[in-house]
Amino acid sequence: VKASNLTTKALDAVISKILPLDLDAQSRAEELQSKLTKPPGSLGALEAIGIRLCAISGECPPPVPSPAALVVFAGDHGVLEEGVSPWPKEVTGQMVANFCAGGAAVSKGFLDRKIRAGTWNLAQQNAMSIDEANQAIQVGIDVASDLIAKGACCLITGDMGIGNTTPAAALIAAIANQPGRLVTGRGTGVDDAMLAHKTSIVEAALARYKGDIERDADGGSHGPLFALAALGGFEFGALAGFMLQGSASRIPILLDGVIADAAALLAASIAPEVTNYLFAGHLSSEPGAAIALEYLGLTPIVDLGLRLGEGSGACLSLPVLQAAAKIMREMATFDSAGISHKDEE
Amino acid sequence: VKASNLTTKALDAVISKILPLDLDAQSRAEELQSKLTKPPGSLGALEAIGIRLCAISGECPPPVPSPAALVVFAGDHGVLEEGVSPWPKEVTGQMVANFCAGGAAVSKGFLDRKIRAGTWNLAQQNAMSIDEANQAIQVGIDVASDLIAKGACCLITGDMGIGNTTPAAALIAAIANQPGRLVTGRGTGVDDAMLAHKTSIVEAALARYKGDIERDADGGSHGPLFALAALGGFEFGALAGFMLQGSASRIPILLDGVIADAAALLAASIAPEVTNYLFAGHLSSEPGAAIALEYLGLTPIVDLGLRLGEGSGACLSLPVLQAAAKIMREMATFDSAGISHKDEE
Repeated sequence: VKASNLTTKALDAVISKILPLDLDAQSRAEELQSKLTKPPGSLGALEAIGIRLCAISGECPPPVPSPAALVVFAGDHGVLEEGVSPWPKEVTGQMVANFCAGGAAVSKGFLDRKIRAGTWNLAQQNAMSIDEANQAIQVGIDVASDLIAKGACCLITGDMGIGNTTPAAALIAAIANQPGRLVTGRGTGVDDAMLAHKTSIVEAALARYKGDIERDADGGSHGPLFALAALGGFEFGALAGFMLQGSASRIPILLDGVIADAAALLAASIAPEVTNYLFAGHLSSEPGAAIALEYLGLTPIVDLGLRLGEGSGACLSLPVLQAAAKIMREMATFDSAGISHKDEE
Repeated sequence: VKASNLTTKALDAVISKILPLDLDAQSRAEELQSKLTKPPGSLGALEAIGIRLCAISGECPPPVPSPAALVVFAGDHGVLEEGVSPWPKEVTGQMVANFCAGGAAVSKGFLDRKIRAGTWNLAQQNAMSIDEANQAIQVGIDVASDLIAKGACCLITGDMGIGNTTPAAALIAAIANQPGRLVTGRGTGVDDAMLAHKTSIVEAALARYKGDIERDADGGSHGPLFALAALGGFEFGALAGFMLQGSASRIPILLDGVIADAAALLAASIAPEVTNYLFAGHLSSEPGAAIALEYLGLTPIVDLGLRLGEGSGACLSLPVLQAAAKIMREMATFDSAGISHKDEE
């Protein structure tokens, strides 16, 4: 399924810059790992992370992914009127103010890139127009470009949006082809009755989306841009654009939770090579997260049962990414350190 | 089973200072967690870690566990003559030199607290005397005391010792009452034949140890000091002492891999309250690690398949411990941030 009949020229230009991994740098990295002063394989997942950082950057040893830039993309959701969250809509804006005041789990400055005050209710109609979907993606591209130009060597995804686990579930179900009940979770804390209702809303949105695709003769609405417009939210588009630009700039991208995982499915549907640049920062306890990561072929770095969003889980695994790179840059080799080799026959 | 008929007065003094957790601080911490600007439970394991840091320190919010001090306790092992590792004995000292030169996974300065050039071969006889076991524990107590006096707010365990997964397996089997085959692993990389041989060495040591206990009429050799002397290594005793002193000083202790896990079983056998002060930094891929942690009731913070030792796994989870404390110190409450409450009936 091609997305290009709906994408802008600016997006097409970014997509065209996303390269496959550098397999030569990857080979050199594998060889270096075998010479470092440690038993082969003894650094577990750190070794594979370090090797992939080489393949991403084309350098061995890889640059340390520092400084890292965390962006929390915020959006409001029309579907909130269906009663899918116990929190009122105002909390999105209040929490953004809390970030700016330094009081949240993750705190930072503010950039106004508003597309609209909130999406339409995806249970009833498409959440946004194709034009707005492209605008949202462009926000992410622009923000990532700017941060990379300012020296960011790692991009960390964050999100804030009361109700946004509902579009996340719908997007994951649509792209990974799963039923709504398997991907819909309790978000920030819905009870059993609200969970059943939320699942029915996700299922209704999926049915509407699939019906639209079946009625569409020319196939133009089958791609990820249409999925974003039909089932998504502005922060999902921005996150996908952020990942696409990071990949085009050969920068590792650390995903936070289920919102980022859903946006990663969008980004990978737009440009499959994106998955090579993504690291799953943690495993959100939302059920859609494991399904999305499995679809993407990504293993989460930590699993601490977080479900907050805001980039909180991804921040916890940034030191792991940095350690994986530093080990390759700073650890001695057996030869350089004059250490006796393993007694191999 | 009492250890005190074998312990020194200095060790008894440390044991007497290890207090239960502060349940009042724990209650205040639970209440604070419910007021922070996040949905209840949404920070997953970070919440429980933060609450335990309060119960350890008696302060809510808890002090940030920084600066942290990592100590790599090194020892050589007589059992190496049985062919339980593919690496020659010289590598222990060479790697210590590599740490000091800054070339290893974890690098630092050097402190000479040698007890003996290496233990006796635990497959044939006790690895050390009871007096040496007490000396080893005292090394850990002294090193921890000194670091805490210099301002360390968190202790991280590290180890280096070619062959030390063999005594680790023997200690875990003895204390957690498991067969040798379930706790013996490939260490730094033994093949199938060497693993079978290594398992038989662990089983032989256990049989010798159990036989000694059965023949001992007064019960004086049943305790953890005898287990350390019979089956351990100098670094295990030092690590246990390090944990005991950290607990007595109400400092959180971050365990590295299977060597630390085995030493933690010793420390907890000497003073059960120690487990309240321990955090499992990661899950080593050595099979004894999961068994020891389950016995201790500890959940590893990260699981990245490491099996290097040297404190490498524990270092990766220090930022998680620090984040758990910082969140409680810095995050706003719903009231202070003026954020609308969850719509609860």
